[in-house]
This record gives sequence, structure tokens and C-alpha cells, in this order.
Amino acid sequence: MIRVEHIGIAVKDLKKVNDLYSRLFNQSPYKEERVASEAVNTSFFQIGETKIEFLESDQPDSAISKYVDKNRSGIHHIAFEVADIQLEIDRLKGEGFVIIYNPAKLGADNKLITFLHPKSTNGVLIELCQELK
Amino acid sequence: MIRVEHIGIAVKDLKKVNDLYSRLFNQSPYKEERVASEAVNTSFFQIGETKIEFLESDQPDSAISKYVDKNRSGIHHIAFEVADIQLEIDRLKGEGFVIIYNPAKLGADNKLITFLHPKSTNGVLIELCQELK
Repeated sequence: MIRVEHIGIAVKDLKKVNDLYSRLFNQSPYKEERVASEAVNTSFFQIGETKIEFLESDQPDSAISKYVDKNRSGIHHIAFEVADIQLEIDRLKGEGFVIIYNPAKLGADNKLITFLHPKSTNGVLIELCQELK
Repeated sequence: MIRVEHIGIAVKDLKKVNDLYSRLFNQSPYKEERVASEAVNTSFFQIGETKIEFLESDQPDSAISKYVDKNRSGIHHIAFEVADIQLEIDRLKGEGFVIIYNPAKLGADNKLITFLHPKSTNGVLIELCQELK
């Protein structure tokens, strides 16, 4: 695994959080984007080689809404960049991890992505992503 | 802020988690350490410029034990490296964030550390750290 590509944080009110974290990080989000396929609004800050991604959902039955309802706001997942996602999926499946998308699916930002189910990772939702050239 | 220095993950059983994440990351923890002052056992993996730090407590009334009891295992905090921690503490205090240690205190690994209280950061426990030369 190459780096922590991003840390995903689920929030209730993206506008409020953008203002708060602009002051915390002393910089504005470099991008705000609606991802219609996941029913989320997102904003991104860059710290070193890692993005901090805030996720707000406006659909009450989405994964992010359910998470926020259950846990309030909080760190939702960690995404690791890998060089070859299918190779990692095959290796991790062989190690007994539960792979959510196999084969990997096309995500935002021209990336192939998958997730490891928290029940197989001691409670942490882990994303793997590979940048497409 | 320079980089995500580490991501802290609270766990119930460090031995089990070390085995699981050695297979997940395809590498062994580069360090295991008991931090007596915090009543925790820790292990560290390095991914890019970020450490993944697992924390297990053997004291039922410690902050980590309380967290695990309440939330089960999960991502406990994010630590950002800063160039001058006292400058950041003063700036963030002026912005209304609640600083847990002011002045910063000496933590593990020859670092000065402090935390921002989650009630002021929309629910995320944030650590700031500065490496001492």
C-alpha cells in the first residue's frame, strides 16, 4: 500500500463543517463536489499526501445518513492507495477479508475502488483505490 | 499543517489486531510499545508518510477502554504534524477551538502534543504534534 489517499469523515451539515475546518486547517477546501451515484455532497482539504474528505448526505436512507444517525459525525473510513487493486483484492480475499466490490468499480476522480467490510477488519471500514492513468 | 502523522485506532485485543493487519498491510508492525503514562499498549505500521497506530488499554477506566466500551473498536483520532505547535495552539484558540493541553505536553517519540476537543471539531478527536529536533 502506497499511502493514505484520504480519510472520509461523515457529517450532518457540510457548510458548517467547511467553515469550521477552513479555520482549523487555515485553508479553504480545494474542491466541493456532488456525487450523485452515492447521494452525497463532498468537500476536500489536502494535508501532505492525504486528503481529508467530508461527506454529507441528503438522502435519509443512504449509507452516510445511516452512519451519521447511528454515530453522530465521525471518521467514517480510511482509503489506501494501491498500485494494482485487482492484485490486492485477490491477495486479501485469500487472506480471508470480505471484499465489497469484486471486481473493483469505477469511483470518483478516475479511480478504481473497493472496500473491505468492517466485520473482517476489526470494525474499520477500509477503502482501497488505484489511480487510473 | 504538514501531514497526517498518524491515525489512532482503538482496539480490544492488540495481538489479534497485529496479526490481522499484518496480513492486511502485508507487513509486520515496525514497533510495539507500552505507554505507561496513558495505560496503553501500542503497535505501529507505516503507510507512506502516515503511521497507523493501534491502541489497546488494560485499564478499564482509561480513555481508550471507555472509547472501546462505548463504540467497539474504531478510528479514535487523527494526528496532524505541525511546524510550531504553540503557534498553532494560539491560532486555534483564537478561532474558538477547545485545546486540551495548553501549553503542549511531551508525548511519546520525542514529540510535543496536544488535542482539540471533539465538541469543538464536529465530533472528531484531533491531535496536533511537533517533532522535537
